[in-house]
Amino acid sequence: MATILVKSGGEAAMPEWQRHFAEFAPGLAVHWWDDAAVAPERVDFVLVWDPEPGRIAALPNLKVIFGTGAGVDFITADPELPRHLPLMRMATAGATQRMGEFVCWAALSLLKDARRIAINQAAARWNYFEPEFTAGETPVGIMGLGNMGSRAAAMLQGLGFPVRGWSRTRKALPGVTCFAGEAEFDAFLAETRILVCLLPATAETRGILAAPLLAKLPKGAGLVNVGRGSHQKIEDIIAALDAGQLCGAVLDVFEQEPLPADHAAWAHPKVMVTPHLASLPSRRERAQYVAQAIADFEAGRPLANLYDHARGY
Amino acid sequence: MATILVKSGGEAAMPEWQRHFAEFAPGLAVHWWDDAAVAPERVDFVLVWDPEPGRIAALPNLKVIFGTGAGVDFITADPELPRHLPLMRMATAGATQRMGEFVCWAALSLLKDARRIAINQAAARWNYFEPEFTAGETPVGIMGLGNMGSRAAAMLQGLGFPVRGWSRTRKALPGVTCFAGEAEFDAFLAETRILVCLLPATAETRGILAAPLLAKLPKGAGLVNVGRGSHQKIEDIIAALDAGQLCGAVLDVFEQEPLPADHAAWAHPKVMVTPHLASLPSRRERAQYVAQAIADFEAGRPLANLYDHARGY
Repeated sequence: MATILVKSGGEAAMPEWQRHFAEFAPGLAVHWWDDAAVAPERVDFVLVWDPEPGRIAALPNLKVIFGTGAGVDFITADPELPRHLPLMRMATAGATQRMGEFVCWAALSLLKDARRIAINQAAARWNYFEPEFTAGETPVGIMGLGNMGSRAAAMLQGLGFPVRGWSRTRKALPGVTCFAGEAEFDAFLAETRILVCLLPATAETRGILAAPLLAKLPKGAGLVNVGRGSHQKIEDIIAALDAGQLCGAVLDVFEQEPLPADHAAWAHPKVMVTPHLASLPSRRERAQYVAQAIADFEAGRPLANLYDHARGY
Repeated sequence: MATILVKSGGEAAMPEWQRHFAEFAPGLAVHWWDDAAVAPERVDFVLVWDPEPGRIAALPNLKVIFGTGAGVDFITADPELPRHLPLMRMATAGATQRMGEFVCWAALSLLKDARRIAINQAAARWNYFEPEFTAGETPVGIMGLGNMGSRAAAMLQGLGFPVRGWSRTRKALPGVTCFAGEAEFDAFLAETRILVCLLPATAETRGILAAPLLAKLPKGAGLVNVGRGSHQKIEDIIAALDAGQLCGAVLDVFEQEPLPADHAAWAHPKVMVTPHLASLPSRRERAQYVAQAIADFEAGRPLANLYDHARGY
């Protein structure tokens, strides 16, 4: 019988994980990450978010590492991570759909100035104004065209937004004007009125949402960051908002999470702060995904959505 | 030379109206509603929102009345309104698009609990939670399937929402489960998880969003009212929210507008108040629409989107 250790949601979440795995992988022994009763050599699989450095390397018979999210940067941060083991990202259909919904909500919130509406409601102030543009006049540019970026692109088009996309290697998506690589980055930004960051967290993308990039957007553009906090320099974003270079920002991720209560982003009249909830599949959905992957692995079928150490995503 | 009187946006908006009409109807004389220099018998057309009762009847050579919005209930409220004159509703492509965007934003705001997010932001509180459902699990039911309801239905489907529709007479819309008339109303409500009101304001629809209707929705449904304030009994909506029968409401219209600062809706943790801004086309767009209609009228072509006194919309 195969064994998996789980570190996601704390020990309190284990009964729920065990219930879901019992449904989808009845033969699997499911234990808490720190369960002292499980000998390291018995562990076949792990499902983790931020393992303590060295812990994964101490499991001699480990076969596959499953990340609990679409990004695995909190796993690859472990300097002792065994690089020969398959590391699988969580790419469930539900998470992709939720991200698309969130991106559309964020883009529409910028279009309608939902932050202004919320501030007025808090003050019981009936402040009529006319949102200036329609979706058709507001090109959305998506950085990162993986599963999530592709789904978001299709959904945004259904709302009437023209959609542009940028990725490291060129992609082709229906209806999307696609740009690729460093050489086409400025052209991509020049006509993007709402910029959406869905990039993976790599050394190359760290701090990309900073003054030099923001200055290349049209004046009054909007920003949505649903990538990682490490993608953004929050002081640069706030400065661009205060200068009118940006008209608004929806930020779901921050370098320090939870965002400290005294951070300037909370009260800023042009920033919508959301607590890293854009996209997380349910535990049941994640258990089903991992159970299917284990079945594939044990039957010798190839695994999808594997992390590539050379690319960094 | 034909003459139009305009009452929309106050006298201060006249230079803008004149500029736009100069572009689209260069031969038209454009005057403010209360311009004493214009003899009543000279007036061919009016573009109005809420004319004082009797004023329109006092224009002996009036040919067409143009409303400034999709609903003309503030015009038909005039007991002396000449019923033989064509009364044209504003149904621009831009207004239809804006309404679709707003409905999608409101539906996604309920799905993601944007009100909770906004309240937490106001308190600088990082309160992580997992929005429970995806769009695919959340049927949206639209009451009223005119231009705006039809466009909203298509846009919602692009986001993954199953869409149901209800209208007085049966409609057929791609992908939409359509219900019609009194007999099918309960079946329509029974599986609607987000109810959108886009009905015209008639004697029949007055006060429809009240306790009897709300009780027929599944427990925990959401409500979006972008029709008229007269459609809703706000005390019933608040009672349903407090009882958990509704999970949230996005209300863009109220019986009394501006909504008084001491109204309970402002601070309610489940209500998003927006100041009747869901859909208004720009003045330029409205001038273009009216100019085209005048050209059609003068050329003897039939006018579209005429109000029907017998139907009430």
